[in-house]
Amino acid sequence: MSLQGQLSASISSSSSAFLAPSVFINSSRAVNVSVPSKRLGVCKCVATPTEEVTAYKTTVSRNANIAKLQAGYLFPEIARRRAAHLVKYPDAKVISLGIGDTTEPIPEVITSAMAQRSYALSTVEGYSGYGAEQGERPVRAAIASTFYKDLGIEEDDIFVSDGAKCDISRLQVVFGSDVTVAVQDPSYPAYVDSSVILGQTGLYQKDIQKYANIEYMKCSPENGFFPDLSTVARTDIIFFCSPNNPTGSAATWEQLTQLVQFAKDNGSIIVYDSAYAMYMSDDNPRSIFEIPGAKEVALETASFSKYAGFTGVRLGWTVIPKQLLFSDGFPVAKDFNRIVCTCFNGASNISQAGGLACLSPEGLKAMHEVIGFYKENTQIIMETFNSLGFKVYGGTNAPYVWVHFPGQSSWDVFAEILEKTHVVTTPGSGFGPGGEGFIRVSAFGHRENVLEACRRFKQLYK
Amino acid sequence: MSLQGQLSASISSSSSAFLAPSVFINSSRAVNVSVPSKRLGVCKCVATPTEEVTAYKTTVSRNANIAKLQAGYLFPEIARRRAAHLVKYPDAKVISLGIGDTTEPIPEVITSAMAQRSYALSTVEGYSGYGAEQGERPVRAAIASTFYKDLGIEEDDIFVSDGAKCDISRLQVVFGSDVTVAVQDPSYPAYVDSSVILGQTGLYQKDIQKYANIEYMKCSPENGFFPDLSTVARTDIIFFCSPNNPTGSAATWEQLTQLVQFAKDNGSIIVYDSAYAMYMSDDNPRSIFEIPGAKEVALETASFSKYAGFTGVRLGWTVIPKQLLFSDGFPVAKDFNRIVCTCFNGASNISQAGGLACLSPEGLKAMHEVIGFYKENTQIIMETFNSLGFKVYGGTNAPYVWVHFPGQSSWDVFAEILEKTHVVTTPGSGFGPGGEGFIRVSAFGHRENVLEACRRFKQLYK
Repeated sequence: MSLQGQLSASISSSSSAFLAPSVFINSSRAVNVSVPSKRLGVCKCVATPTEEVTAYKTTVSRNANIAKLQAGYLFPEIARRRAAHLVKYPDAKVISLGIGDTTEPIPEVITSAMAQRSYALSTVEGYSGYGAEQGERPVRAAIASTFYKDLGIEEDDIFVSDGAKCDISRLQVVFGSDVTVAVQDPSYPAYVDSSVILGQTGLYQKDIQKYANIEYMKCSPENGFFPDLSTVARTDIIFFCSPNNPTGSAATWEQLTQLVQFAKDNGSIIVYDSAYAMYMSDDNPRSIFEIPGAKEVALETASFSKYAGFTGVRLGWTVIPKQLLFSDGFPVAKDFNRIVCTCFNGASNISQAGGLACLSPEGLKAMHEVIGFYKENTQIIMETFNSLGFKVYGGTNAPYVWVHFPGQSSWDVFAEILEKTHVVTTPGSGFGPGGEGFIRVSAFGHRENVLEACRRFKQLYK
Repeated sequence: MSLQGQLSASISSSSSAFLAPSVFINSSRAVNVSVPSKRLGVCKCVATPTEEVTAYKTTVSRNANIAKLQAGYLFPEIARRRAAHLVKYPDAKVISLGIGDTTEPIPEVITSAMAQRSYALSTVEGYSGYGAEQGERPVRAAIASTFYKDLGIEEDDIFVSDGAKCDISRLQVVFGSDVTVAVQDPSYPAYVDSSVILGQTGLYQKDIQKYANIEYMKCSPENGFFPDLSTVARTDIIFFCSPNNPTGSAATWEQLTQLVQFAKDNGSIIVYDSAYAMYMSDDNPRSIFEIPGAKEVALETASFSKYAGFTGVRLGWTVIPKQLLFSDGFPVAKDFNRIVCTCFNGASNISQAGGLACLSPEGLKAMHEVIGFYKENTQIIMETFNSLGFKVYGGTNAPYVWVHFPGQSSWDVFAEILEKTHVVTTPGSGFGPGGEGFIRVSAFGHRENVLEACRRFKQLYK
């Protein structure tokens, strides 16, 4: 396939068509962009040209927590800007290294298991209806033995889900509105946004770009992207992602041992996001449960999305050890189980068949190959920015490269790169104020696209 | 296949293996069974024989709302009792007409579309990653044109999801803790339980078997299973399911017109659950949006589960008209969109391919055939209980038969039927106090099993 063909294929096979801005997203953003306009902007938001003006309103008050949210969720917002760019430059060969969306085909050993399960559903013997909300036993067992062997994690501790992002929300429902939370700054925006939605935070403070009542743990080159815990206030919940999205940094044994001790000293619960663990090259812990004592203070979320290209197939899991207890001694896992049973009905049985195939010897080998491919992309991106004289972080242990543009606004850099190279990145400040001055470049992409993007970066910054 | 073979196949293909009681469910129930025991029962709950006793507890308080919940969620509890029965009678040929779980194979026109989509994910051209959180455009368009043609509902109003139960929870997150809710009594337990979890209710009042601050709208033979709205207090949200689960009753044009007017008079929002609409034989509205003015006061959830046997595949949708506004004029759909984008990542792309196939002419024909098959089961069950002299409700417009055992406890009747016939039903009181004295018999089952169950009922009640 020609380079141009590859580029077009990339564009058409990407999610742009699905993420195209709808009337909702556009007008939602217009209204939501600053908090005080919430009430002032009412008429404007209803009376967009495409919507009928209705006089009738219910008397149900809008959820005040949701009204605190700023703009749209980050990635739909990036998709919106990408779509706007395509309107401006309809012939542009846009390359997306923005949202961390996988691009490589799923290995056949995995898709054929899903196809087989689909066909089996047409037979009396192969049909199954409702599965366990916690996931199919063989999948839970395979996850336990593949990722948590000798760590004292059993299949009963594992809840199979439709993805880590969904589980984060369900965890927030378990915790409720009365907990306090800490996040790495910068961090994956679902942690903060779900905290806001559940009412765990105060209002957004525009001047410092932070919500009140969230503890932002600054992670920067100065502290090796690991927070100075001596300056971190005690919270109930600590969201911690390693290898980190977006900085690409992976915490060391020593750092995670410190974190577990910090949680124990404070009686906190760590929500550990290990969605990128298989991308690690360095000898850092793959799971928080490799740290002694972690089972009493941590739970862990993970996902097949970035390992097997399951971003659209939807499959993840959460591990909650029996030893993790609320202050009254009630196991966190039991409340999570109740939420999973009441608010969820299990991941798709077809996706679970895919997950099981991922964890077969052939599936694991195939996943490692796909991950290896993306890691080569990461190298190419790192070398490009290094050669241009940028300070580059991450990459070695994660599919994200974190490029420093000191003193510049992330959104300005994002806009300049998009305008001049037609490459979509992600502005660091979208992950929190600590990301200001950085750009996240994702290594997910066809090789030709990554090479072409790097050629354009070299052109722009030569 | 012999009858015995059919029975065994039914048992092995049912969800019992996945729903088998885990340590969590067992001990959770032991602790949760009455609210005041929450703190007293702490040591007991931790020190079950299979769990290690740990001294360490975090200082994070358990979510007080979740602590209000009674026992386990209804259907896992029924599965637990079924499993306990199998331990007692290992050779029993148990037939499950309890949880409304589909049993018939999915038509091939649908599974082959899912298999094709699976295989396509192994190709560069056919691969797709993250889709739109709201669902793929063709699926949204097909839902709009199939179910809402000429009703003024557009594809942008439709959010594709992993099922109606999951959407109910996401809707509750949108509404937050400050709303008041009404439910039909009896009703599908997810409405009440999710209200409790979000903190919309008071404590459970054991004497009347109701949560404080929920408006229970009694639906009984006396009022034709439609609440006397003149006695119903105003609430923000009104959950309304028609055809109803569990009573099988479908509201008429006149009744739904009354309901819409009631909501409008009160400024309420109706969450209308139409998951069984395709089962209707009578000429009642299939969608709340068939009622003039409903778009200003109602949203609707629906599902492929009971139409196409998708209980394990997971696919549903929610319709939120642009005209549905909070008191400040902000569209409900925009907040739901924000929650869907932040707390969800779209239904599995393979399941969506199945949904699209369901809505093709061949898919619709195949779904109607499966529904017709279950409706024949319903007839058989209705005739059986009628012939035994029971008062029987539902059935005509829903896959559920609602059998009256006046003056008896539902759980006692459930237990007697299970003990003496090895048939699992659902006790009516599991759906609310208004279900006391009733048993729900589900029409989902292989024909041979339904016939055999009816033979056993005739033996028991002759």
